[in-house]
Parts: sequence; C-alpha cells; structure tokens
Amino acid sequence: MTTPADPYLLTPGPLTTAASTKEAMLRDWGSWDADFREMTARLRRGLLDIAGDTNGEYDCVPLQGSGSYCVEAMLGSFVPRDGHALVLANGAYGKRMATTLRYLGRRHTVHDTGDYLPPRAADVERILIANADITHVVVVHCETSSGILNPIEEIAEITQRLGRRLLIDSMSAFGAIPLDVRTLPCDAFVSSANKCIEGVPGFGFVIAKKDVLRDAKGNSHSLALDIHDQWDVMNRTGQWRFTPPTHAVAAFIEALRLHTLEGGQPARLARYARNRDVLVAGMGSLGFEPLLTEPWRSPIIVTFFSPADPAFSFERFYELMKAQGFIIYPGKLTTVESFRIGCIGALDESVMRRVIEACGNALSTLGVANAAPAPASLGAREALAA
Amino acid sequence: MTTPADPYLLTPGPLTTAASTKEAMLRDWGSWDADFREMTARLRRGLLDIAGDTNGEYDCVPLQGSGSYCVEAMLGSFVPRDGHALVLANGAYGKRMATTLRYLGRRHTVHDTGDYLPPRAADVERILIANADITHVVVVHCETSSGILNPIEEIAEITQRLGRRLLIDSMSAFGAIPLDVRTLPCDAFVSSANKCIEGVPGFGFVIAKKDVLRDAKGNSHSLALDIHDQWDVMNRTGQWRFTPPTHAVAAFIEALRLHTLEGGQPARLARYARNRDVLVAGMGSLGFEPLLTEPWRSPIIVTFFSPADPAFSFERFYELMKAQGFIIYPGKLTTVESFRIGCIGALDESVMRRVIEACGNALSTLGVANAAPAPASLGAREALAA
Repeated sequence: MTTPADPYLLTPGPLTTAASTKEAMLRDWGSWDADFREMTARLRRGLLDIAGDTNGEYDCVPLQGSGSYCVEAMLGSFVPRDGHALVLANGAYGKRMATTLRYLGRRHTVHDTGDYLPPRAADVERILIANADITHVVVVHCETSSGILNPIEEIAEITQRLGRRLLIDSMSAFGAIPLDVRTLPCDAFVSSANKCIEGVPGFGFVIAKKDVLRDAKGNSHSLALDIHDQWDVMNRTGQWRFTPPTHAVAAFIEALRLHTLEGGQPARLARYARNRDVLVAGMGSLGFEPLLTEPWRSPIIVTFFSPADPAFSFERFYELMKAQGFIIYPGKLTTVESFRIGCIGALDESVMRRVIEACGNALSTLGVANAAPAPASLGAREALAA
Repeated sequence: MTTPADPYLLTPGPLTTAASTKEAMLRDWGSWDADFREMTARLRRGLLDIAGDTNGEYDCVPLQGSGSYCVEAMLGSFVPRDGHALVLANGAYGKRMATTLRYLGRRHTVHDTGDYLPPRAADVERILIANADITHVVVVHCETSSGILNPIEEIAEITQRLGRRLLIDSMSAFGAIPLDVRTLPCDAFVSSANKCIEGVPGFGFVIAKKDVLRDAKGNSHSLALDIHDQWDVMNRTGQWRFTPPTHAVAAFIEALRLHTLEGGQPARLARYARNRDVLVAGMGSLGFEPLLTEPWRSPIIVTFFSPADPAFSFERFYELMKAQGFIIYPGKLTTVESFRIGCIGALDESVMRRVIEACGNALSTLGVANAAPAPASLGAREALAA
C-alpha cells in the first residue's frame, strides 16, 4: 500500500513501517473484548522475549502516549519520593529526564557530558562514591540528539557494583541494540512502539522487575502515568486501564511478527548497521563528515556536519530531498550546524544508496561542489577521539 | 475495507470508524515535516470551529494519550495548587476525576449523586455558597457509566453566577451534543479522538480560553501532561512536543471531513438520537428496560437492566451477540445488574435494527422468553423520575 509518492522517513521516528503493519489498522477493535485482551497479552509476551526474560523476573507494562510519557512514568513510579537520581545527560533526551524529575520534585544530580561525549563508568563511579545518597542512575541508551550509542553495559556494571539501581531510556535502541536483562542488570527500561520494532506511534512500554513494580505502589505523581496501577489492572483484567490505541496495538502485533520473521534483534541490528555503513560511506564520497567517531556511532541515526560551503542551506536541502522522496531530520546540536539521517524503519541498503544519490542531486542543485564541513567543526570529533 | 467479518462496536469507544478513516492510516508521516504540521493546524482549527469559537477567545491543544490523560492534564494545568475543586460525580468518570485530584494533591470536594442521578444547579449553588474557597467546578458531560446526559447548561450558569470556574469532561459528548463556547461559559473542556468525531484512539484534546492557558504556566504536576507547555511549543513550532500518533491524526483529519460532510454536530446528534430511539424501542419490544428516563437518556450509550430470567447470562449473551457481529458492553452500575449498548460510531438505524434482531436471537438461544428486569431494579428509575 506504500505508493511511490510516500516519502521514506529517515528520522528517529515516526518511521517508515511495512505495508502489512499499516494494513493491520484497517479494522476496529473493542478494547474490552477477549480478542483484544489476547493481543495485549501477546504484545507483552513478545517484548519480554526480546528482552531475554526467560525466568519471569520482569514484566512488561504498555502505556498509552509517546515514549516520553513512559520515561516520565518510569521516573515517577520507580524513583521514590525520597530518592535521589543521577541523570547521565549527553543530549536532549537526557536533559528531558532532568526536566521531568524537576517537575516531579524528585531530587536529582545531572552529569552532563555535552553534545556528543559519552558518560563513562569512571565518572559515574566517582560521583556515586562521593554521593552515597544517590539511589538511582538514569541513562539514555541511544541519544538520538547526536546518534551516540551510550556504553550502558559499563554504566550498569558500576551501578550494580555500588549497590544503586539503574533505569534506562532505551527508546531508540531496544529491539535492535542488545539489551538482555539476563546480562544487563537494571531495574527497568522503556521503549516505544515506533522505534526499532517498527510499529506506529501511539504507545510505549516499560519493562521492569516484578519486585520493582510491586514496590512502586503509591509512588506515582500521576494517575495516568502510574505504572504500578497500569500493571496491576492489566494483570487482573487483561485490559488497559484507559482506552488503548487499538489500531496502533494491532499494527504492533504485526510489527512484532515481522521482527521475529527477520531474525529478531540480531538481524535487525545487522540491517540497520548495514544501512548506516552504506550511508556513511556514500555521504563520505560526497564530502559529508559524521559527527561521531566509529565506536560511538549508532546504527539508529547519524549526525552529519553541515557543509561549510555558504551555498548550503538546510531548509533548501530538506525540500530537495523531500521532492526526491526522502524526509531527513534537522540537527539538535547546540554548538555546530548539523543534520541527521535515520537508519531505522522498513528500509534497507538499496534505499540508502538512493538516499546518497538524492543527496548528490540536491548538492548539485544547490551548487555545493563539496560537502566538507568547516575544519573548526571537526574539533568536536577530535575531542571525542581523544 | 470493513469486511462483514468485522463486528460493529456498540461501545463508548473505541468505536466503529468509517473505512476511509482507517484507510487514511495507510501512510507514514514525518512529525517534523511541514505537511504534518499543516495537518495539526487543520485539526486544531476544525475542533475550534465545532466548539463555536468564532472570536479566537479559545485555543485547542491536542495531547497524546487517552481521554483520561487529557482530563488529568486539564485538572493539573488549570486547577491551581492552592485551588479547591468541586467534583460533580455520578459514575466512574466523575470518580476518576476525584482520584486524579487526589494524586495531584489538589484540594477537592466530591458531590456524588450515585449511579444515575444528575447533579442539579440548586445543589451546586448550595455547596458553592457554603464553600467560598471552591475555585473550580468539574463535571462530566455525558457519564457513560450509566449513559446519563448531565445538565451542564444549568451547572455552567450557576458556576458563572457565583464567580467560579468550570472545567468539563466532554469526552463522550463533544461533536454530537451541543457544546458552544459562545453560550456555555467554561474555562476549558476536553474530549478525545475516538468518540463523537469518530476517529481512532491515540490522542485527546483540550479546548480552553487563551488567558486560562497563559495563566497555567508552571502549574502542572507533570511534564508530559503540561497543557501550557504543549500549547506554547505547538504555537511556536507547529509541532507536538513529543512524538505524535501520526496515523491517528491522519485518521482524525478524515473523520473531521466526514463530520462536516454529514452536517456537523446537529446532523451527528440527529443520527445518534435516531440510533438510540430505534434501539430503545426495539429492545423494549423484547422486554428490555432502559435504566434512565427519557430526559436524561443520552444518544451516546444506553444502559439496560439485565433480564430477571435466571436463564440470562451476560457472558453468554455477549458471546452470542459477538457471533452475530456485534460487540456490546458490560454494565458499570454498582447496585443492579445491567449492560450497555452504544449508539455512536459509523453506524445508523439500519444497523440498530439488526442489533435488535440479534438480541432477539440471543435471547431465544438462551431460552429467555421475556427480557423484563426484576421489578425491584426499576426502583432506580423511579427515584430518578421523582
């Protein structure tokens, strides 16, 4: 059903979904009905399988709203009112967690490594040792502001070693980047329907230890975002507490089927990584330079420096790409001009080759002979490599 | 695209939507893109038109999540932290508003008239005079627990006369029941996509006075549910703060088109009222009695007493109706056995006649000769008529 006129979405989400995922929405479902309750149960089980929960230690709680609603629900439900959270921030989503905690009146300390530097275990260790009252560490798995893949394994290891609890915003990672609860110690993480599982937007989900869910009773600042209450009602009735986004759930069931069919998380990671590699190589041949050095560059979205050539205008470049069937994404860096191209969604390297071709055409139209960034911009990258 | 195998949803929502509404979801939209921003603007303008906002005094703020999220957002954003809300409750949704205010730590007084009696102006007047510190009155327009249409006009009049502010949960009413801000004084009301506009679930919206929106800055308990912040960002950028349910928005644009095409709110009310009248008459011919007397019976959903005949079982009745293509709804009354049949969605009186036929078949299969309720049940109705 995707006509050639529909542009590909090369964004951090919503993203291009499979035709059959969208077609699953051509039916209305009663949210009270047993068929829909069965779909909800299947969705929860499918996500727990991807998370590696083989011994029933964790549970999955889907929640209406966008991914940020789930982050707020996780923070409000799991950081106790007398808790103290260490927020590891290196972009908009880390900062948003700090803003959320401020709204909630929950004590928090922010360790901000700026636009593109990762939080490292040694720094976290130092901060946790110096602040014995920090109860929780919260971190973004893939920070799409820059596209960086944060080293959650080393963060999880030090957090556990020092007896603190870890909450992860795995929004743009889970389903493609490994996150296995058998090997990664964490209290909970969140993700959303319209990311690496390739569903449509409308809900997200929290995957948390059952004892953490039990202990969250009475903790939430919000009825709508009370994960304990959503979990409790869902377990007792099989239903969502409030009207669920039934069509988005139906689409997600199909998206989960396609995820399994493709080979699960490893296969999805391989496709996205190939998308990224083809993209970075092709863009490089046009002169574009990625912000991040290789080990930190996620297969989710890549930030490129804007070309130094004054003939380049992102607005015009965006429209020229759109006219060729590709929706790209603006940058979110505070200090240097940049833009982003996503690697996720129902697209493969053949699409990426067409993206490169389209970028080349757009540069020609703009009269940009070489897309190289200003040498000063590269300072950012050098700092990262150091 | 609705195949005969798809059951009709005779529920308070999600409901049966038009085929073209669902087909609008067969495309992926980039949420940052100008095309989607234009859709958001059109959605907001279309809803303000239905609300009768001809002089730009109000604004419309769509919000991700279910309708109850919008209720919580309205309460948390507009009832000040030192405010005091009078909650008029006569069913689950009124009670949920009280629960929400408890979560928010906002002072509130509940005037609960039970399962099916409406709040009346005289009682509200008495309570407001006795409690000079009550700042806000909050009321449910159509309480689908019983299907009662609450008299919001008289509530609005007395609230305004006594200098207090009115917040309305018009979830299951707006778009079909008149709610015109030129004649009904209120600070704000909320509704959702999957009710009388006949979209799919995934978001709701708040329609509020612009000065009330301005004054709400810093008031919300929640980042995700901060209506002021959503409004401010949407007005500055044309975008939703967090990922919008793009497919549900596209479906809603089509649903709005169909709403206008049908003749707007008056035509939709006429169709729903006709659905209700055909339903009540037909059910009456089988012996079923509605809970509510005529003036209070909404054209949204009708509660029927369960038959007294011990051969009747709601679970079996439900399955027999489902097998014939109709999803009905359980009751939500605390004292008497009942069930509900909705009148809203993309269906008309010809469907309602088939519903009656299906009910007759189901009763035959169950061996229920007459669907009359126990005489004692009717006491509820007599109290209402008194």
